[in-house]
Amino acid sequence: MSSAKANIGVVGLAVMGSNLARNLASREGNSVAVYNRTGSKTDELVAEHPEAGFVPSKTVAEFAASLEQPRTAIIMVQAGAATNAVIDQLVAEFEPGDIIVDGGNALFTDTIRREAAVRETGIHFVGCGISGGEEGALNGPSLMPGGTVESYETLGPILRSIAALADDGEPCVTHIGTDGAGHFVKMVHNGIEYADMQLIGEAYDLIRRGTGKTPAEIAEIFAAWNTTELESYLIEITAEVLRQVDAETGSPLVDVILDAAGAKGTGAWTVQSALNLGVPSTGIAEATFARSLSSQLGQRAQAKGLPGPEAAAVDDADAFIEDVRLALYASKIIAYSQGFDIIVAGAEEHGWNIDKGEVAKIWRAGCIIRARFLERITEAYAEQPDLVALVLAPFFTDAVAGGQDAWRRVVQYAAGSGIPAPAFSSTLAYYDGLRADRLPAALVQGQRDFFGAHTYRRVDREGSFHTEWSGDRSETAL
Amino acid sequence: MSSAKANIGVVGLAVMGSNLARNLASREGNSVAVYNRTGSKTDELVAEHPEAGFVPSKTVAEFAASLEQPRTAIIMVQAGAATNAVIDQLVAEFEPGDIIVDGGNALFTDTIRREAAVRETGIHFVGCGISGGEEGALNGPSLMPGGTVESYETLGPILRSIAALADDGEPCVTHIGTDGAGHFVKMVHNGIEYADMQLIGEAYDLIRRGTGKTPAEIAEIFAAWNTTELESYLIEITAEVLRQVDAETGSPLVDVILDAAGAKGTGAWTVQSALNLGVPSTGIAEATFARSLSSQLGQRAQAKGLPGPEAAAVDDADAFIEDVRLALYASKIIAYSQGFDIIVAGAEEHGWNIDKGEVAKIWRAGCIIRARFLERITEAYAEQPDLVALVLAPFFTDAVAGGQDAWRRVVQYAAGSGIPAPAFSSTLAYYDGLRADRLPAALVQGQRDFFGAHTYRRVDREGSFHTEWSGDRSETAL
Repeated sequence: MSSAKANIGVVGLAVMGSNLARNLASREGNSVAVYNRTGSKTDELVAEHPEAGFVPSKTVAEFAASLEQPRTAIIMVQAGAATNAVIDQLVAEFEPGDIIVDGGNALFTDTIRREAAVRETGIHFVGCGISGGEEGALNGPSLMPGGTVESYETLGPILRSIAALADDGEPCVTHIGTDGAGHFVKMVHNGIEYADMQLIGEAYDLIRRGTGKTPAEIAEIFAAWNTTELESYLIEITAEVLRQVDAETGSPLVDVILDAAGAKGTGAWTVQSALNLGVPSTGIAEATFARSLSSQLGQRAQAKGLPGPEAAAVDDADAFIEDVRLALYASKIIAYSQGFDIIVAGAEEHGWNIDKGEVAKIWRAGCIIRARFLERITEAYAEQPDLVALVLAPFFTDAVAGGQDAWRRVVQYAAGSGIPAPAFSSTLAYYDGLRADRLPAALVQGQRDFFGAHTYRRVDREGSFHTEWSGDRSETAL
Repeated sequence: MSSAKANIGVVGLAVMGSNLARNLASREGNSVAVYNRTGSKTDELVAEHPEAGFVPSKTVAEFAASLEQPRTAIIMVQAGAATNAVIDQLVAEFEPGDIIVDGGNALFTDTIRREAAVRETGIHFVGCGISGGEEGALNGPSLMPGGTVESYETLGPILRSIAALADDGEPCVTHIGTDGAGHFVKMVHNGIEYADMQLIGEAYDLIRRGTGKTPAEIAEIFAAWNTTELESYLIEITAEVLRQVDAETGSPLVDVILDAAGAKGTGAWTVQSALNLGVPSTGIAEATFARSLSSQLGQRAQAKGLPGPEAAAVDDADAFIEDVRLALYASKIIAYSQGFDIIVAGAEEHGWNIDKGEVAKIWRAGCIIRARFLERITEAYAEQPDLVALVLAPFFTDAVAGGQDAWRRVVQYAAGSGIPAPAFSSTLAYYDGLRADRLPAALVQGQRDFFGAHTYRRVDREGSFHTEWSGDRSETAL
């Protein structure tokens, strides 16, 4: 054990943890303590990166002793049991005022529970969402810390030193809110990411089947889109993936990849949370289920013979491609609007004071959904802090208005051609539901009152009412 | 306390409980003990229904003493804390071999937990789904009991005596599976019910806005549909609800009902379970979210000005109405196919041996989704017990094939006219996704490998692969 004291420690030195440790070490003023359960991993990291000046430890006790007080350590291990175990070990060695940060993808309700438990000891516990993958961890992630305001006084400067910088030079980190707020917002970020990826996938599929263009040609379309309002990391890497040729077969790589999408659970968590909060989040739900459907290989093998139309080639490929671009933009606005609705409802439910504009701001760089578009979200909330839905901000209302004829044509084309476009069509149906003067929910309420005496409200006065459906059909006010 | 011994008891005498108790008492061979925490409710029930010959008790101890051994008692109280309290009280008085039945809408994971806890005492605990509302409880519900096979030997004959009878005279009850299987299947029943109601709502809305017909006229259309393959309780009561005129205003009642749909949580539970199981259940999800959306009255009030097309009147109303009927049938088949997928996956996850054909059979009468159509589901599983998806049974494949042109036209009309049809369009997108030769999930896998090194599989050989996206773009087998 070195006698030098570190101002920050990292526990868990797999790819994400070691990249984060290297990022921390590379910034002026940081000295980084490192610990890993399997000591050989620590030795390797220290040997491979002498420039980092890591302070290694063989035990948790040594690790704790190697940290300046108040001690600050970031845990980068598997969510669940491994995280619990490390927290227990650190709590045993740390002292009141020290700070334990969980940088994994924990479910926010676990974080709320852990924060409450650790707080009993006087130690701070911070659930911190980290987005940007391995690359982001090394060069600058977007960081979403929760926990106490007090802990952020120590932690904030350290996180700011490693965060991605937006174009205006601002580091992509802010104190999201107390206890589980950081992991909650990170979860919603990932849910939006699912929707964004699914929408891009549908756009690609529609263009390919509607125009017969090759993946390489479609890569150029995405590259061109990346100079428009769609400019974003996901559009950029889509062009890269579509451009890639498989060395072995000479085919486009996308045709060689098995079309069964994996998922690590954060999309499902987002939808489950939205269901608990009563927030309609159809874009994220369709995207999550589209991944599940793709993985049902047994069903799909048998279902390939199910009847349906052949995709008809579109008449005007350029016009169609522009329609798809506009549909993608409109659907994306709805998916983000739904995502911010989840954040608003979650904040209300859990008593978090989350600044929506700040959230959009720290997603401008470092994270997977980073995009030009996010500036507009920050502006929308700056102009109207009480905005009840993102799509109601003038900029986004106009954007959807401008694209909606195209959006409707694309959904119609997909339905007629037998091309699945669940996220395009679901976000459109949501938009039409949101703006509807009347919804058939009135009939649903009538049905519920008929079979279950669930009562209904009236449009013309307050109260709950029930019709005696199996009696004289008179109405009773309750 | 009476000295007569009862063969069955009911705890909790609100509407559902007292109706169930009266149903039990009306059947040959049953003597029914009743207990309610507030004794006055017990007194009222006994006074109002002398014909029932109830055996009332003032305490749980008396209640237990009034039952023949092995004692069998059905709890009909609020799910959650109230259910827990009653279980604890009964466990304190009952003996090994006795049977406690929870007839409420408990979450199946709670039932699994409770069953395991109660089993420790030697007492049987049975979670039993009961569908059919107040009317069904009184005259014959559809019953979905879980719990041990042994407990069903005693409980089965009692439940058979009160269950609804299908047209062929068979009582609508079967032992679904062990522990929480009954509540699980009841939950999925309710999820399907959400989808069915939403689809009917969309059909009504499309016809109304597309043809200008009045609710009374549309009631006749539903009444006519009820003589076709759509024949079902929900179609039947839809005609009744649409026919109803509000006495106060003279308007159709459906126009006076506030269009904000309530929900008691079972739809959300179904979707949350489907997400845990990785089963795409888009029809139920869209139906659940459509209810949430309808209840966002603050957002909706501001969103009514959002731009969109006016619904254009259809050219040929009769042809359109027939299209909507066929679309409803096709969408319904998909929603049920997804629902049965959840049952299959849940059974596999929890080790339940659930007979899908039997489930469809006991839904033929008594419950809210009772329908002619269910016979076909039973037949489909009888013909192919290893059917991997309901829609792949020849009868249903043909039904969807026959209706799909109409279905696509309806979805296109909705998208073009600005009428929300989330369940129609979502089930169509699912169908096209299921039968797709290739899905854009391959692109999603490429993106995931690009930003998170999540790896992908190949179509041409086994294994996991990663492309060095930020390096030389070579591929590594892992």
